[in-house]
Amino acid sequence: MADARLKDRIDQLAGGAASLAGRDVLLTWQHEDVAIRFVLLAARILERAVRAGLPTRAFDRGLGISIFRDKSTRTRYAFRAGCNLLGLATEELDESTSQVAHGETVRETAAMIGFLTEIVGIRDDMFLGEGHRYMTEVAASLDESARAGILLQRPAVINLQCDLDHPTQSLADLRHLAATFNGLEGLAGKRIAITWAHSPSYGKPMSVPQGAVSLFSRFGTHVVLAHPPGYELAEEPLEAARRSARESGGSLTVADSMDAAFEGADVVYPKSWAPVAVMRERTALRTGGRSAQLADLERAALAQNAQHEPWECTAARMRRTRGGRALYMHCLPADITGVNCRAGEVSRDVFEAARLDTYREAAYKPFVVAALVLATRVPDAVDRLRRLADRLERVS
Amino acid sequence: MADARLKDRIDQLAGGAASLAGRDVLLTWQHEDVAIRFVLLAARILERAVRAGLPTRAFDRGLGISIFRDKSTRTRYAFRAGCNLLGLATEELDESTSQVAHGETVRETAAMIGFLTEIVGIRDDMFLGEGHRYMTEVAASLDESARAGILLQRPAVINLQCDLDHPTQSLADLRHLAATFNGLEGLAGKRIAITWAHSPSYGKPMSVPQGAVSLFSRFGTHVVLAHPPGYELAEEPLEAARRSARESGGSLTVADSMDAAFEGADVVYPKSWAPVAVMRERTALRTGGRSAQLADLERAALAQNAQHEPWECTAARMRRTRGGRALYMHCLPADITGVNCRAGEVSRDVFEAARLDTYREAAYKPFVVAALVLATRVPDAVDRLRRLADRLERVS
Amino acid sequence: MADARLKDRIDQLAGGAASLAGRDVLLTWQHEDVAIRFVLLAARILERAVRAGLPTRAFDRGLGISIFRDKSTRTRYAFRAGCNLLGLATEELDESTSQVAHGETVRETAAMIGFLTEIVGIRDDMFLGEGHRYMTEVAASLDESARAGILLQRPAVINLQCDLDHPTQSLADLRHLAATFNGLEGLAGKRIAITWAHSPSYGKPMSVPQGAVSLFSRFGTHVVLAHPPGYELAEEPLEAARRSARESGGSLTVADSMDAAFEGADVVYPKSWAPVAVMRERTALRTGGRSAQLADLERAALAQNAQHEPWECTAARMRRTRGGRALYMHCLPADITGVNCRAGEVSRDVFEAARLDTYREAAYKPFVVAALVLATRVPDAVDRLRRLADRLERVS
Repeated sequence: MADARLKDRIDQLAGGAASLAGRDVLLTWQHEDVAIRFVLLAARILERAVRAGLPTRAFDRGLGISIFRDKSTRTRYAFRAGCNLLGLATEELDESTSQVAHGETVRETAAMIGFLTEIVGIRDDMFLGEGHRYMTEVAASLDESARAGILLQRPAVINLQCDLDHPTQSLADLRHLAATFNGLEGLAGKRIAITWAHSPSYGKPMSVPQGAVSLFSRFGTHVVLAHPPGYELAEEPLEAARRSARESGGSLTVADSMDAAFEGADVVYPKSWAPVAVMRERTALRTGGRSAQLADLERAALAQNAQHEPWECTAARMRRTRGGRALYMHCLPADITGVNCRAGEVSRDVFEAARLDTYREAAYKPFVVAALVLATRVPDAVDRLRRLADRLERVS
Repeated sequence: MADARLKDRIDQLAGGAASLAGRDVLLTWQHEDVAIRFVLLAARILERAVRAGLPTRAFDRGLGISIFRDKSTRTRYAFRAGCNLLGLATEELDESTSQVAHGETVRETAAMIGFLTEIVGIRDDMFLGEGHRYMTEVAASLDESARAGILLQRPAVINLQCDLDHPTQSLADLRHLAATFNGLEGLAGKRIAITWAHSPSYGKPMSVPQGAVSLFSRFGTHVVLAHPPGYELAEEPLEAARRSARESGGSLTVADSMDAAFEGADVVYPKSWAPVAVMRERTALRTGGRSAQLADLERAALAQNAQHEPWECTAARMRRTRGGRALYMHCLPADITGVNCRAGEVSRDVFEAARLDTYREAAYKPFVVAALVLATRVPDAVDRLRRLADRLERVS
Repeated sequence: MADARLKDRIDQLAGGAASLAGRDVLLTWQHEDVAIRFVLLAARILERAVRAGLPTRAFDRGLGISIFRDKSTRTRYAFRAGCNLLGLATEELDESTSQVAHGETVRETAAMIGFLTEIVGIRDDMFLGEGHRYMTEVAASLDESARAGILLQRPAVINLQCDLDHPTQSLADLRHLAATFNGLEGLAGKRIAITWAHSPSYGKPMSVPQGAVSLFSRFGTHVVLAHPPGYELAEEPLEAARRSARESGGSLTVADSMDAAFEGADVVYPKSWAPVAVMRERTALRTGGRSAQLADLERAALAQNAQHEPWECTAARMRRTRGGRALYMHCLPADITGVNCRAGEVSRDVFEAARLDTYREAAYKPFVVAALVLATRVPDAVDRLRRLADRLERVS
């Protein structure tokens, strides 16, 4: 995009910045198209500014606090790098289960870490029905303390993966799609296969496919979802996807095999996730610490998983895609057959051919985080982007 | 306070800044009234500056190092946020017991982490007779290395809770009192009840009541201390409190029931702490790792505790306070009956009514930390505050 | 050195900056003399700038990422302080063995943490033959992603201790030698004894003596290496040392006793390290987790160690050195007889006399780290140093 057009684009999407200002980002389907588009534009401008060596600092003080209730390398780094890009220091709350539990204590902790904080990033993706609820509890507590004047500002809560959605992942993925297909406009009519794939582990979160299905369907795309019986996704993101597909002139269809989903696809996103019944039971068993039953559940889930070993993204399947050259996507790390497991999500040759592409996909995440911080917490975000676009125009 | 008067006030208390420059803050009773007053004023100005969006950076580089030998959420965050406010990066020394022990190694570690460090914040509150001593050992080591020219500057040691005192807590509490009673002057003649309260745990540090008793008694207040037999506080802070009460025209009395202490009180601070004999024995048992005896000790302490279950801050008791509306204070987290325990320090209704007030109390802590850093380590602290006051005058 | 001469010196060594720009620092013997001299000069100027209160920030954003696969206090702090000196925020990658293994995953992780990163500092010193290889794998992955345009810049990899070398230690040691002997020129003809010493532990890395032998021999020094049979060092650093000694007009000799090594020495560096055969076997046993054999190996190694208890740096031995006053060096922490062990590397009196000197030695490390960051990652490093020298001239 020419730099002069960049400034026009900022102006066209300024409403997106306005709609995000002071908001949380918990589920992408709670935000309008213009907001999504603004975030992608901001991510792109920030990336170009860094490549051009332009200053990007927007804060002279302030903290980005992260709470990780599950492991993370990529998102943790992206959160820290994205905050650093704008001048925020980052701290991670080392939350032991006993210190910060639900109810009374969530309210208290949210207030305690909010005083000089601009962003609270949270990952809570282990238990279906809990992650999103926890984030809304934190948000409500921050609201209460902000209203009472206890907090000097209301930090924005950014979802770094919950049981329903994974916005920093799906937005980075979308940025990757836009970069690949010549802008979001280029996505109209494209066929995107989001399919379950086999993994030797059984309990991966459902947030990545749910985030992808719900977000990618906004742009006139034809999204095809495929998985074995029992691996259905949660209804809320599916309903968001159906609505978006309808409104954008695209479609959402469900196929019952990886082969069917791959047929003529422009993009494939084969990825393991847990059976929804198992996730529900796991949440239920959690109370009371019934470890014997949890072990039984795990055994049954692995047996169920093993039946679907053929759900692997192979070279033969890739040949079914459009021109045999669909874009392969993965949030990483992938389970690669013969590399880090015996029978995984993707064959070695397919992954190796796409490997650098998956790194590129991940590379957008720090900029997406920074764009979300900018949009939610920096009052003059639009002006800042205009100034950066201006300087980019001059240096290019 | 009008902003013009703010500048007068800075000038009046400039001697406080001078007396803190280059000093450690280990025990508040080692510092004069003017120093305490200066810290409170600086905390207030920094908070107003942040609310007004004014810049507060005082360092272009430099570290604040924290050493936590006990759990912390609130103080850890406050330390990081306070340092960040002034431009210091923070790091936490992850001190395993084997790497950093007493004696030789304390000297060495203190030197090793001091080279580019402005502040060393330490929490060591687990063992009576050890925490304060450890801090003085660190301070002496820093002195030695600074004298030898090995350290480029002598970092200030800030007590983030020891066995004797908890200055960042008591100063934030005092700031809260000043905000509630129209300045420190408003505290004269006020009746403040600092009382033991029951908790299902038995070993909470004594530093919070000791810090409160010794600090609050400086301002002509009538401090009433109450606890069951066996829960006496350490002599050093009590002696400081008696002296301060005498000098400021206030009083320190000891009552033998929560009811007596609450009678006509303007402020109540009901809080559990460990029996001093148990704390002493715990320190003694520590050497040699006599875990069987430690378990016995814990059992006995819990049995002793259980006898005092009626020491709970209830609505009925609150009605005994002045107008039935005393300010309820707590350093958090509180043990709340029926919320996070069966029989705790405070009833659910009393806590809920005061809950946001306790958050407000905690909210002062980052600014107190920043004020201590400013006073001890920034040579032109007074000028900086005057400039902030000047700008506050213009923006208001 | 007079400040005017400082600027001449910068100009003379500008080629060193050029040769380090965009490079990794894995083994000092991969870098020319002029590069080593430039790093020492930069460390000296940065230290003086900090002492004079001059600004040292070179980055407005960016991260220094550290990966510690072994314990560290000193180097960890030095890395953070050195990065902070130039304006980089630091983060530590908490790498669990399962997440980041060799092969596929190293490539991926390197890319994932490289997007906005200037420096990747790595400690991996536990297994002979593995540490250096891991660092070269990370470097190769960063190269690949940089070439593909996925990384916005190629971060420099800095060795924070591997199985072969420990550059930040040896360069800080060298800086200490230069400060003691009136510049690197003052080292010509000096006799430096690097000798094994007894410790109650058996498995200390060989990287400190290897780093010292290979680096100190560049300056016309007479390096004497001494150790019991079986404690030979790796061939690669020894070969580098022999070559440097030849080229610089110095010498490298091997003695078979501490007494012989100390005879007439200007500098002594008595330090425990593991027998090379044990280190090799440990690496081999690692695969398969043969813990019984590891326990046997440890027992045998400790028995072997015990035979060499007399290898202790005592006052009697110090009297054999030049004028009885050789400079005692240690990377810390030292095993001190009667202080933290029964029979260690050094006697209590010798260590106490030299203690502050060893702190001074360590104090150079943050500046060495900063100098390495400056040289490898800041394009106008030479100009920045000239400007600092200029300001130092004016303030002095």
